[in-house]
Amino acid sequence: MTSPSALIAAVAATLLALPAHAEGPYRNPDNKSVYDAGEGTYPVPYKKPTVAEITASMDRIRGYLETTTPTKIVHKSTGIQITDFSQPVADAVVEPSSAEWNFQVYEMGVVHAGLIKAAAVTGDNKFTAMTARHFQFIADKYPYFKAQEQQFHLERANSFARVIDPRSLDDAGSMCAAMIRAKFAKVGPDMGQFIDTCSNWVAKKQFRLKDGTLARQRPQAVSLWADDMYMGVPALAEMGHLTGKREYYDDAVKNVLQMTHYLFNPQLSLYTHGWNANNPDAPRFYWARANGWAVLTMSDLLDVLPKDHPGYPKVLAQLRTTLRGIAELQSGEGLWHQMLDRNDSYLETSASAIFTYVIAHAVNEGWVSAATYGSIAQAGWVGLTTRINSRGQVEGTCVGTTFASDQIYYYNRPTSVDALHGYGPALLAGAEMIKLINNPKIDVQVKLRTYHYVPKDAGATNYSHE
Amino acid sequence: MTSPSALIAAVAATLLALPAHAEGPYRNPDNKSVYDAGEGTYPVPYKKPTVAEITASMDRIRGYLETTTPTKIVHKSTGIQITDFSQPVADAVVEPSSAEWNFQVYEMGVVHAGLIKAAAVTGDNKFTAMTARHFQFIADKYPYFKAQEQQFHLERANSFARVIDPRSLDDAGSMCAAMIRAKFAKVGPDMGQFIDTCSNWVAKKQFRLKDGTLARQRPQAVSLWADDMYMGVPALAEMGHLTGKREYYDDAVKNVLQMTHYLFNPQLSLYTHGWNANNPDAPRFYWARANGWAVLTMSDLLDVLPKDHPGYPKVLAQLRTTLRGIAELQSGEGLWHQMLDRNDSYLETSASAIFTYVIAHAVNEGWVSAATYGSIAQAGWVGLTTRINSRGQVEGTCVGTTFASDQIYYYNRPTSVDALHGYGPALLAGAEMIKLINNPKIDVQVKLRTYHYVPKDAGATNYSHE
Amino acid sequence: MTSPSALIAAVAATLLALPAHAEGPYRNPDNKSVYDAGEGTYPVPYKKPTVAEITASMDRIRGYLETTTPTKIVHKSTGIQITDFSQPVADAVVEPSSAEWNFQVYEMGVVHAGLIKAAAVTGDNKFTAMTARHFQFIADKYPYFKAQEQQFHLERANSFARVIDPRSLDDAGSMCAAMIRAKFAKVGPDMGQFIDTCSNWVAKKQFRLKDGTLARQRPQAVSLWADDMYMGVPALAEMGHLTGKREYYDDAVKNVLQMTHYLFNPQLSLYTHGWNANNPDAPRFYWARANGWAVLTMSDLLDVLPKDHPGYPKVLAQLRTTLRGIAELQSGEGLWHQMLDRNDSYLETSASAIFTYVIAHAVNEGWVSAATYGSIAQAGWVGLTTRINSRGQVEGTCVGTTFASDQIYYYNRPTSVDALHGYGPALLAGAEMIKLINNPKIDVQVKLRTYHYVPKDAGATNYSHE
Repeated sequence: MTSPSALIAAVAATLLALPAHAEGPYRNPDNKSVYDAGEGTYPVPYKKPTVAEITASMDRIRGYLETTTPTKIVHKSTGIQITDFSQPVADAVVEPSSAEWNFQVYEMGVVHAGLIKAAAVTGDNKFTAMTARHFQFIADKYPYFKAQEQQFHLERANSFARVIDPRSLDDAGSMCAAMIRAKFAKVGPDMGQFIDTCSNWVAKKQFRLKDGTLARQRPQAVSLWADDMYMGVPALAEMGHLTGKREYYDDAVKNVLQMTHYLFNPQLSLYTHGWNANNPDAPRFYWARANGWAVLTMSDLLDVLPKDHPGYPKVLAQLRTTLRGIAELQSGEGLWHQMLDRNDSYLETSASAIFTYVIAHAVNEGWVSAATYGSIAQAGWVGLTTRINSRGQVEGTCVGTTFASDQIYYYNRPTSVDALHGYGPALLAGAEMIKLINNPKIDVQVKLRTYHYVPKDAGATNYSHE
Repeated sequence: MTSPSALIAAVAATLLALPAHAEGPYRNPDNKSVYDAGEGTYPVPYKKPTVAEITASMDRIRGYLETTTPTKIVHKSTGIQITDFSQPVADAVVEPSSAEWNFQVYEMGVVHAGLIKAAAVTGDNKFTAMTARHFQFIADKYPYFKAQEQQFHLERANSFARVIDPRSLDDAGSMCAAMIRAKFAKVGPDMGQFIDTCSNWVAKKQFRLKDGTLARQRPQAVSLWADDMYMGVPALAEMGHLTGKREYYDDAVKNVLQMTHYLFNPQLSLYTHGWNANNPDAPRFYWARANGWAVLTMSDLLDVLPKDHPGYPKVLAQLRTTLRGIAELQSGEGLWHQMLDRNDSYLETSASAIFTYVIAHAVNEGWVSAATYGSIAQAGWVGLTTRINSRGQVEGTCVGTTFASDQIYYYNRPTSVDALHGYGPALLAGAEMIKLINNPKIDVQVKLRTYHYVPKDAGATNYSHE
Repeated sequence: MTSPSALIAAVAATLLALPAHAEGPYRNPDNKSVYDAGEGTYPVPYKKPTVAEITASMDRIRGYLETTTPTKIVHKSTGIQITDFSQPVADAVVEPSSAEWNFQVYEMGVVHAGLIKAAAVTGDNKFTAMTARHFQFIADKYPYFKAQEQQFHLERANSFARVIDPRSLDDAGSMCAAMIRAKFAKVGPDMGQFIDTCSNWVAKKQFRLKDGTLARQRPQAVSLWADDMYMGVPALAEMGHLTGKREYYDDAVKNVLQMTHYLFNPQLSLYTHGWNANNPDAPRFYWARANGWAVLTMSDLLDVLPKDHPGYPKVLAQLRTTLRGIAELQSGEGLWHQMLDRNDSYLETSASAIFTYVIAHAVNEGWVSAATYGSIAQAGWVGLTTRINSRGQVEGTCVGTTFASDQIYYYNRPTSVDALHGYGPALLAGAEMIKLINNPKIDVQVKLRTYHYVPKDAGATNYSHE
C-alpha cells in the first residue's frame, strides 16, 4: 500500500503545477472596519502603498543587484583574480555573476535607467552608485579587453565584445541610452567614446527595411521585432537629446510609427511580437513583454522629444491608444498575462512592471488622466509587490524569448529570478509610483473599499447620501 | 515533521480556493437511455425545468424573505419592541434583519417587482403578502418617523431616511417603480404621497449632466453609472404609465439612449460600468450586474412605453443588440461571470438572474425569437437552481459594489447570501421561466440530448433520417 | 475522525476533476544543452517530429481501425456468422464493432480519405487495405441487403440503409467523396452504382434554401449547419473531378460562399455552428469541429477545383482568412478548445487534427506561407501525439453533436475513443506532417529553443551576433 505521506506528496506535487498565487488571502488594511461584510479578501495585498514601503522594495532590489554584479577580472579557468593588467591574457574574463547576468546587456541598460530614476525620485545617490561603478569599470578596463581582442581574436567570447564590437541592436541601444542618461544625471565617468560606438551602430549599421524600419535577419530573412522599438528608439531619442540634431528625433519617430504600422492590431490595441516579410499576414502573438518594450519606447521618446516636433502628437496618440488596450487586460491580481489576450497563460512580472511604470509615468506627465489610470497603476504595483522577495530578487520574469511562431513555446517559457529583464522595470515602477502618490495634482481618495485618483482641478466629489 | 493531517489541511485549504462548482456531476434525466454513450454528465442539473420545481424555488425564496424582513419598531440599544407610538423616541428603529437588509433600499424594489410578477404568473397571492405588509408598515409608521426626524434630526440614521428625505437615485427610483406597480396590481395601501416624493427626486432633483443624463458626483466629480439606468428610468417609465404624461416617457427614453451613448461598447455589445468626465476614454470594466441593470431597464421601459412612442424601436433595437452580446458570453454552467468578458472571474448570481429574466421575458413578449434565446434562458435557470439553497437563500451574489477603477477590486468582491441584489431577480427569472415553458406559441423539443425552443408558427421540423 | 486516507481520497478525487493534461512535463530533446536555463519544460512533448514517429502513430491508428471494423454478417440476436447468402434473413446485420462504429457513416469517409493519403505519402499500401476490404464488402453484400430490404422493410435498421436509401447529407456526402478518391487511387472494386446513388442525393435530393444552400429541417424548420459544408461540398467537388462537369464545381463553390455568408463572423474569423431562419441574428456558438469541417471543405475543394474557375480565388481567400483566425486561437498545448473562443472549454482532438491537417496541407500546397504556419502545424501535431495512445486509439474526441442553442450542452459534450470523428483527421494530419517536414522548399530551423519554418527561396537568415 502507498503510504499517506507518498500520496500527500503526489497530491501536493499536482497542486504545485497549478498557477502560482501570492501567499494571501489578504484583507485590505485601509479598511478599518474589521467586520465589514462588504470587504472580502484579496489574493494580493490590495492597499494604497506608502513611500516607505516602495522605497524599501527598491532598496532590496538595488542591494541584490549590487551583490550579483561583480566588476572584477579573473582567469576564466580558475576564477583567480587578475591584478596585473600590463599585458592581456587570453583567459581574462569579467567575473561571472552568481545570477548569470552580463553587465553589458540591454537588460542592464534598463537597470541603469531604473537606478537613475530611483536616485532622482528618492534623492538618495546610493541607487546610482552601481551605475557609477559599472561605467567606471567599463571605462577603466576597455583598453585591456581591446588589447586582448587584438591579440587573441576572441570575438563573442571577449567579455567586452558588446562594447568593442556591437553586432545587434541588443548589444547597442539600451546601454547607449543609459550612458547618455547617466551623463545628464552626472553619474559616472565620461562615456563619450562608448556612446559614439553604440549610437553609430543603431543609427547607421543595423539592418533595416528599405523604408528605414529597424529590422533583423532572423528568424525569417526579413523580420521585425516589437522589442526593437526599445532596442533602437530610446538610443536615437537620447542622441537627439544629447546632440540636438533633428535627424535622430526624426528617425526615432519614424521607427515608432512604422513599427506600429507593421505590428499594431488596432482591433485589440496590442502589438504582435513580430512580423516577417515572408508572411506579412501571419497569425499574431501578443507577447506581453514586447508590448512592454513598445510602450516604454514611446514613453522614453516623449520624455525628450521636443513638443513642437511633428511626431509628438502622433506618438502621444499611439501611446494613449496602446495603454488603453493594455489597461483593459490587467488581471484580477494586478499583473498581466504572458500572452496579454490569454488569461490561461501565467502572470508575467517584467511586462507588468513596465506597464505599471509607463501608466504611472503617463499620469504624472499628464499624458493620460489620473482618473482610472491612477488606480490601474496602483493595482499593478500591488501585484508587483508579491514578486519582489525578501532578498530583493524579482520573481516570475519570463527568460529571454525569441520571436517565435507557436503558442506552445510562448506559454511555456520558464520564469527565473535570474532573468534580468524584470529588475530595471521594477525599479522604474517603484520610483514612478512614489511620484504618483506624492503627485500634488492628485487626490487619492479611499472610498467604499477602493481607490479613486481624483484630479484636484476637476471639481468636488460628493458622498453626502452615504 | 509536519503531521499528515496538517499537510492534508493545507492541501484542502488550497483546493477550497479553487472556483466553486455545483455539487454535480449530474446526468440529464430527460434522456431515458441510461447507457447512451452520447450523453455525458453536467456540472449543473441540465434538464427542462417543470412549473412545480420553479414554483417551489420561488416559494422558498419568498419564505426566507418573509422571515428576514421584520416590520417591527424597537429600541436600538435594547432591541425591545416599542408599542407606544404617541411620542417619538430618539432610539426607535425598524428591527434589524438577521440578513442585514433594509426594507427601503433599491434592492427591495426589485424584490417587490419579483413578488408582484410571481403572484401574477402563479395566481397565488401569498407572494404579494410581503409587499402588502411592507407598504402598509411604511404608510402606518411614516408619521412616527417623520415626527422623530423633526424632533431629533437623525438624518441618515433615521430608519425612514430614504422615504422622508431621499438623497440619491438609489434611495428613490427602484422603490418608486415598485410602489406604482403595486398600485396597478392592487397590492397594499395607497402610497401616493411616497410616490410623489420619490418620483420628484428622480425627475427633478437628481444631479444630471447638462444634456440631462442622470449622473453622480462620485467617484469622480462628474460620473455616469450604468446602474443608474435602473435606479432612474423604471421610475420615470412607471410615472408615465401612472400619469399618462409624455414627458416622463421622453425622459426615460432619453436616458436609455444617452447612457448607451456614453457607456456602450458596440464592438463587444456590452456596457462599461461607468464613465467619468475627467477621462471619457478610460479603460472599461464590463461588470456583469451593471449590464443586468441596463437590460432590465430597457425591458421594464418597453413593458409600459407606448408602442407609438418614437423611442420604442430605438430602445427595442438596443435591447436586442445587448442581449445578443450578453447571450454569447453565457458560461458552460449557464451562469455569467462577474466580469462578463473574463472567464477567470467567478460566476455571479444576481446578474445571471437578471439576464435569465430579461431573455425569457423578451422571448415571451416577442421582442426576440424563441429560437436560441429560449434555450439560453433555460440554461440560465438551470445554473440559477444551483444557487437557490434549501433555506431559500440565494447564494453567490456580489455584494454592493461601487464604480471602481481596477480589476483587483472587481474580481475580488465578496459574495454573500445577505446580498439582497440576487433575490428580486431570482423571483423575476422564475416567474418568467414558468411563462416561457407554458408559452402556447412555443414547442420545446427535447431532441438529441438537448433543447430546442421552436416557434409553432415557423414550419415543421423533420428528424426522419434518424 | 475522518482517516487521513479518506481525506486524501477526497482531495485526490477533486484533483481528478481538474482539466486533464498530458503526462509531462517534457523537456525538449532537440535542445542538447541539458542545463540550459533558458529551456523550461512543456506539458506536451515539444520537439520536431520525425517521419518514423509519425508513421508509427499512423500505423497504430490503422491497426486499431482494422481490428474494430469487422466485415462479417451475423444474426443480430445470436451473433452467429451467416454464411448462406442465397436467401435474406430478417435479422442479418453487419457484425457490430467493439468500438460501436458503423462502416458506412460520414466519419468513415474521412477515415478512408486519411488511409488513402497515408498510403500515398508513405508508399505503403497496407494503409488502403482496409479501404479495399470495406468497399469490396459493400459491393459484395449490397444485393443481399437490398433483397433483405425488399422482403422485410427494415428501413433505418437495415445495416446497408445509408447505401440503399440515403436520407441525409450525413448518409451520403463524405462516403461518396471517399469512393471517388478510392477510384482515382485505384483502391477497391468499382463503386460506380454507389457513387451514383449518393451523389444524386447530395446534388438533387437534399433539402436546400431557395438560394440553393444545403440545409436541414432541424433543429429549427429551416436551419444551416456548418458541418454540411463537409457533408456536401467534397462530394460535389469530387463529382466535378470525376465527370468534368462544371455544374458540380459551381454548386460546390456556391455552397462554400453562401454558407460563409450565413455563418462566418469576420470579426473573429470563425464560423458559428449553425444558423436558423427563425432567428438569423441568434447568438453564435463557435464549436471547434464545425470550423474544422469548414476548412477541410475548402481544402478538399481547392485540391480538385480547376485554378481557372472563378470561384478559386474566392475560396482560397476565405480559407486563408479562416485559417488565420483559427491559428490565432491555438492553445499553449498545441490543441484547440471545444469552443474555439473559450479557453475554459476542453481541448478537443478531432477539430485539432483537422486544423493540423489543413494548415500543413495549405503550406505544402503553397496556399499559405510556411513561415509561422509551419510551426503552428508542428505544434498541432505535438499536441495530437498526446492523444494517440499505445493501442492506436484517438482520445479526447467530442462525440456526435447536434446544432444546439446553449453552452451547457456544448461545454459538456463527452469525449470518447469510440468517437470515430478523430481517426480520419489524425491520419490526414500525420500524412501531411510527413510531407511538411520532407518539403524540399522549406528549411526547418531549430534555433533558440524553438522552430522556424523558413522558405528556402526567401533569403538567408543570420545569427552571427549570437
